[in-house]
Amino acid sequence: MQDITAPQSLPLAGWAQAVRQSTIQQLLAVATQPGMLSFALGLPAAELFPSDAYARATAHVLATQPHALQYGMPCEHLKHFIVQLMAQRGVVCSTEQVFLTTGAQQGMSLLSRLLLDCHAPVLVEETIYSGILQAVEPLQPHLLTVPSDAETGMDLDAVEALLIEGHRPAFIYAISDGHNPLGISLSLEKRQRLVELSRQYGVPILEDDAYGFLCYDDSWSLPPLRALEDDWVFYIGSFSKILAPALRVGWVIFPESLVSVLSALKEGSDINTATFSQRTIAAYLEMGQLSDHIADLRQAYGLRRDAMFHAVTTFFPSGTRCYQPRNGMFLWVELPRAVDMEVVLRIAVEQKKIAFVPGQAFSVVRNHAVDRSMRLNFSRCDPEHIMQGIAQLGELLSELV
Amino acid sequence: MQDITAPQSLPLAGWAQAVRQSTIQQLLAVATQPGMLSFALGLPAAELFPSDAYARATAHVLATQPHALQYGMPCEHLKHFIVQLMAQRGVVCSTEQVFLTTGAQQGMSLLSRLLLDCHAPVLVEETIYSGILQAVEPLQPHLLTVPSDAETGMDLDAVEALLIEGHRPAFIYAISDGHNPLGISLSLEKRQRLVELSRQYGVPILEDDAYGFLCYDDSWSLPPLRALEDDWVFYIGSFSKILAPALRVGWVIFPESLVSVLSALKEGSDINTATFSQRTIAAYLEMGQLSDHIADLRQAYGLRRDAMFHAVTTFFPSGTRCYQPRNGMFLWVELPRAVDMEVVLRIAVEQKKIAFVPGQAFSVVRNHAVDRSMRLNFSRCDPEHIMQGIAQLGELLSELV
Repeated sequence: MQDITAPQSLPLAGWAQAVRQSTIQQLLAVATQPGMLSFALGLPAAELFPSDAYARATAHVLATQPHALQYGMPCEHLKHFIVQLMAQRGVVCSTEQVFLTTGAQQGMSLLSRLLLDCHAPVLVEETIYSGILQAVEPLQPHLLTVPSDAETGMDLDAVEALLIEGHRPAFIYAISDGHNPLGISLSLEKRQRLVELSRQYGVPILEDDAYGFLCYDDSWSLPPLRALEDDWVFYIGSFSKILAPALRVGWVIFPESLVSVLSALKEGSDINTATFSQRTIAAYLEMGQLSDHIADLRQAYGLRRDAMFHAVTTFFPSGTRCYQPRNGMFLWVELPRAVDMEVVLRIAVEQKKIAFVPGQAFSVVRNHAVDRSMRLNFSRCDPEHIMQGIAQLGELLSELV
Repeated sequence: MQDITAPQSLPLAGWAQAVRQSTIQQLLAVATQPGMLSFALGLPAAELFPSDAYARATAHVLATQPHALQYGMPCEHLKHFIVQLMAQRGVVCSTEQVFLTTGAQQGMSLLSRLLLDCHAPVLVEETIYSGILQAVEPLQPHLLTVPSDAETGMDLDAVEALLIEGHRPAFIYAISDGHNPLGISLSLEKRQRLVELSRQYGVPILEDDAYGFLCYDDSWSLPPLRALEDDWVFYIGSFSKILAPALRVGWVIFPESLVSVLSALKEGSDINTATFSQRTIAAYLEMGQLSDHIADLRQAYGLRRDAMFHAVTTFFPSGTRCYQPRNGMFLWVELPRAVDMEVVLRIAVEQKKIAFVPGQAFSVVRNHAVDRSMRLNFSRCDPEHIMQGIAQLGELLSELV
């Protein structure tokens, strides 16, 4: 053998050398500490999980399906229920167009690898869910960004300007309802214009609709992008926010011509979506209780949203900007003056046992408005705790801002 | 807006345009047809799943853990059990070095993205588990290959020659026990030499040990590579073959200094490994029945291996080469003369309702020996069906070869 000296450390891929633990990951450890009042993460209310019904579903599956623990084909029965769910969102699709994933996040990861060549461009908002950046990161993409207005969402003039300049991103990432972290739902005009741009320039849209079913204003509910455009929109849905995140089951509505390549990609990623979860969710859906459960969530979370919006406008420093979200789990709050949010968070956690996410955690391009912003989750805690917690946070902010 | 014409079809990533449905994926549809006698896939025996005990574990978790369906941190209790399991394989590690994954396949996918830059080289055997190729494919790697001997496994002279030439693959993919598809377990000398090459040239090893616990010869069981080398070996383990694949839980033993980057990668891929599966597996392990269950599997699969080896040597054309595997789920069979295995498979499925995987499905570099080979699974069917099925397959081969 040659006389050579081995490198002292493992040679990682280039992108990996710059990665630190995500803010969200760090906060999960904090938010799950006993006694912590967490407005940080997008957690559903644990007390509202349909645990008894789900327990009956799992017992039934294990008692009656001898292959419940075996590898298996994607569950047609579950896909059939998803087609019905999608119809409630105004989306017409067939079971052949439903692709089961390990939660919505895997939908993003798979579609990123399906559409994005190494180093190619993608288009995201300047302030956006950090998970989409984590999904594309190993492909070392060129990030094209557009601003978002805190009241109306993605700046479509900026999108069009990029396309006119000749940019052709592998996809545009969009959240039409209950934007994470901004809380915005797009107007019908914006939805129509966005799919028109997609069609005209031949740029696919990844529509992340994790929060679409959690709508708190019946008269306002609008169709997702996929309802307006079949061919260019990949729709990403999930049971995490409407049933239970611990099962990791979501879906993609996609052009069925891509089933072979998407199946191969999925197989290489984790073989298949846990067939036991597929079967037990199908058994739960068979009980016919999901619509009532979603209605319960909308009522409960709607009250929590109202409580938090009221508390922020009451207890936060005057001049604080905040809009009432129509969907989802988050309130985006912009303070009137500069403040070091990392410091606010540290003091809030240590002295008040209250957690939230600093706006910077979602910023691709930093700016002053994001630096003095925070994302607050309203789904996890009941209205009383929300009032108490926001009052305490407001008190702290009044001292620091 | 400009007057431009949209592309007629979705612009996919370059690698994706060449992908067809995998042979394994196609065969899953065939193998799960009613009445099919499948020697095709690596399926555990469904009748041996500990369904009753697992049903008790799920009922217990749902009745006693209010956050069972919530997002959560990786389950420390489960990691603790995995450390104990690893000790049985001779691997010393701590819970901080255990990283939970959505099955072993996700371990491969995550580690590929962790270690492999776009277009960089990786080293695999010419005949190898197709899942590792699917895992690396979106990164469009340069595949360095080495031959394998059907009796002794990976050709380490060829590995060393590549390293001496100056090649530095991002990793070497290795299966030390129950090679898929060749069935081989490496000798202790080969294990020692492989980790020595890894150390000397600074090239990490991805050790896929999905089949390590399924050993059919007590006196022969050897330590995995990770037991011989802590720093350069990433060990990939799984509950799929020793408990149940439908839960999708596996693990990686890795240098804990990489926890931040691996956590970020995992979060971007599917947030976390299904916490409900983590909790229920931990509850099952708490019952203390896994060791007995693995012992039962080893006894049952050992008999099936013997039955299949005996049947192949009895019923297949004379001159057929086949070695008795010491681990795993597969027998690799090389026929004495050229034959179109796709034709054999089609006739076997249509006329005999018997399925297997043609060797070509695992070939990175085609050669005549692989073209006339097949992989046979012996874990799924009982010895009687194995004897009958192999006799029928032998009859068919005698006509065709």
